[in-house]
Amino acid sequence: MEENILNRYGKVIRQIRHQKDISQEALADLCGLHRTYISDIELGKRNVSLENLERIANALDISLSETFLYVERSEQL
Amino acid sequence: MEENILNRYGKVIRQIRHQKDISQEALADLCGLHRTYISDIELGKRNVSLENLERIANALDISLSETFLYVERSEQL
Repeated sequence: MEENILNRYGKVIRQIRHQKDISQEALADLCGLHRTYISDIELGKRNVSLENLERIANALDISLSETFLYVERSEQL
Repeated sequence: MEENILNRYGKVIRQIRHQKDISQEALADLCGLHRTYISDIELGKRNVSLENLERIANALDISLSETFLYVERSEQL
């Protein structure tokens, strides 16, 4: 079964965060969000809002278009 | 002052919808959302969720990465 967008997004965020060697706590601080909220997002449990998508992208120093390019590429694996 | 992400996204959605000659009502039907909700989104009044971002992109037959490429290009104008 194809994974839903929340799962696919969450996995990509975790992957990029690991690549950049940032902890969930540090990412949360950079975004002004709670660590457990970041954890939930990475597990696909949160229907993230556009404002928070932007905060997370900014904190990871990537654009939203790049973020979703990674998500779209992950679909093809 | 730089416009916020909700305004920038809303304007891009309206622009793409016009280019594809789709009414707000038709787009709402395609997304399974209410017409007034689409109207609010286009006016930057809604902090759209990731699931709805995907629904709208699918209905407009564009990817989320393309959607945000348009948003990012609109920032540079």
